[in-house]
Amino acid sequence: MKRKPSSRDVAQLAGVSQSAVSRAFTPGSSVKASTREKILRAAKELGYQPNVMARSMITRRSKIIGFVFGYMENQYYPVALEKLSRELQKRGYHSLMFFADSNEPADAIVEEFLQYQIDAVVLASVSLSPDWIDACHSVAVPVILFNRAIDAEDVTAITSNNRKGGREVADFLVAGGHRRIAYLSGFEGSSTNRDRETGFVEGLQAHGLELHVRALGDYRQDLAREAILSLYRGPESSHPDAIFAANDHMALAVLDTLRFELGLRVPDDVSVIGYDDVPLAKALAYNLTTMAQPVDAMVDATVNALLERLDNPGTDAKRIEIEGPLIVRGSARIPPGYDHEKF
Amino acid sequence: MKRKPSSRDVAQLAGVSQSAVSRAFTPGSSVKASTREKILRAAKELGYQPNVMARSMITRRSKIIGFVFGYMENQYYPVALEKLSRELQKRGYHSLMFFADSNEPADAIVEEFLQYQIDAVVLASVSLSPDWIDACHSVAVPVILFNRAIDAEDVTAITSNNRKGGREVADFLVAGGHRRIAYLSGFEGSSTNRDRETGFVEGLQAHGLELHVRALGDYRQDLAREAILSLYRGPESSHPDAIFAANDHMALAVLDTLRFELGLRVPDDVSVIGYDDVPLAKALAYNLTTMAQPVDAMVDATVNALLERLDNPGTDAKRIEIEGPLIVRGSARIPPGYDHEKF
Repeated sequence: MKRKPSSRDVAQLAGVSQSAVSRAFTPGSSVKASTREKILRAAKELGYQPNVMARSMITRRSKIIGFVFGYMENQYYPVALEKLSRELQKRGYHSLMFFADSNEPADAIVEEFLQYQIDAVVLASVSLSPDWIDACHSVAVPVILFNRAIDAEDVTAITSNNRKGGREVADFLVAGGHRRIAYLSGFEGSSTNRDRETGFVEGLQAHGLELHVRALGDYRQDLAREAILSLYRGPESSHPDAIFAANDHMALAVLDTLRFELGLRVPDDVSVIGYDDVPLAKALAYNLTTMAQPVDAMVDATVNALLERLDNPGTDAKRIEIEGPLIVRGSARIPPGYDHEKF
Repeated sequence: MKRKPSSRDVAQLAGVSQSAVSRAFTPGSSVKASTREKILRAAKELGYQPNVMARSMITRRSKIIGFVFGYMENQYYPVALEKLSRELQKRGYHSLMFFADSNEPADAIVEEFLQYQIDAVVLASVSLSPDWIDACHSVAVPVILFNRAIDAEDVTAITSNNRKGGREVADFLVAGGHRRIAYLSGFEGSSTNRDRETGFVEGLQAHGLELHVRALGDYRQDLAREAILSLYRGPESSHPDAIFAANDHMALAVLDTLRFELGLRVPDDVSVIGYDDVPLAKALAYNLTTMAQPVDAMVDATVNALLERLDNPGTDAKRIEIEGPLIVRGSARIPPGYDHEKF
């Protein structure tokens, strides 16, 4: 392997100036057709590629979007990442990936990111301290939150309507005749968990009910399993007859634990509802009833909000909430007379 | 939002030269302590971030690795992506993501990548035409294949030992008393499928058997399901008593189809073995017996091979094969007296 050829090498071989080489590779720049041809021939011979990085120093647009993700184990995120990346790819943008801890602000990562002259930051289920949001904005890098919201006026956040979603799950379980209803909480520092739980409890209260029991799963399958086992190890009066798990990732572990470790029938003994509608929710082994967060609509909203802020830096930040239907499958008792589409 | 501050702005505010600003942000460069302090104070005031891109033009190292992935639906890839990215992150590298079609060479993408001055390309389950491999090498960008091999001497490829893995699956099924054994093929243009099938058929032949039936699933769940349904729609003599699916992603769909659409018992009526050991294989709803491709070992081998080629551009390309054990769970009949660890 040899060193990468530079624009100087191309200029030398083509017998032109270095700035002519630069213009030949910059869309819209003026350069004589015969000169351009000489340059392209020399570039091809040397295996030279124009340096987009160098160009970004002039245009101050790198066409790179920084992505921070928490983890890929929950199937919602790889699906969202692929769709987001593919949509941005179509528009000439590239994704610089970074993985963070979901339960910690991504401050150190964003500091590093800014050194790469990224055009914007998308945080998926990860948050950022107010100081770092300010730092991004002061260098004209918009911050977009995907599936997480924070109390900051100048940050665009795209989520589902988590509070309304939580209420609808409560309505469905109560209509199904359940009275001993449990909530399996996700990470308590997340807006998604807070809003789903608030809506769920409000929904129960509207029917004159309180939560029968609450357990913490932290959006993790191992903790969800342990929480369910310890609920059923307690006195029978504490056993729920329905469980709302704050996301599908936990709900799938709940189903396995109930069926294969506790020998319970779902939904005859206990109903289970999740949140997200990950691809696996429709697998026949799970057949999970769940509140959808329509990933296509959320990705579209994210891409649109991002492009809008890049094209018009003056655009106000937005709080976008996408509503998803309840996807009624087989893991929760269906209320008598309930009218629903088959999924 | 305002425009990004430049090193010129910092130089002006600090009352120093632009090259002093550049040196202040370059590890190992010499600059007086009092000057550095003035510069850092000015940079902080302006919200200036040193431009790594600009630095990469001098060092000719961008610290960016280009990743091309086929799809995220198969759980093996998001897990591998997260591990690869995190390992490279620890070493100061960043991942520029691109998604391609698994069944087409990633030529156009790599052309675009080279414009970003990436240090190396990692292709996960995606291939590249020989011309583009040459193009990468002529600009000193090594190409690493993850979970895919091609017949090219100068490309480092990391896979599991697919042929040996296929043979071991055949041994296990034959020892379990199966005689009507099916192979559900993955994408036929992939080295992984070719090698697994070759080893599997060799294994059967070593026991005096031929494939009872072969079907095409193309590494897709929908096609795997259709293939299984059409096998069992045929005369009973063609029904297999064991199925080796070329990856777990298909094997999970096979289990759902057998159990919930055809009403068959696994493994009493039919044994199923997959390949990969994705996290979902151990979910109690599936409890899949599978040939492991140990993702940690494969990621480590990939990162080491990558760093070795970056540090010593003269290093020869390598063909690395990682052996995984057969993970014996509940989806395939266990041969009498078979001695295995419990997973």
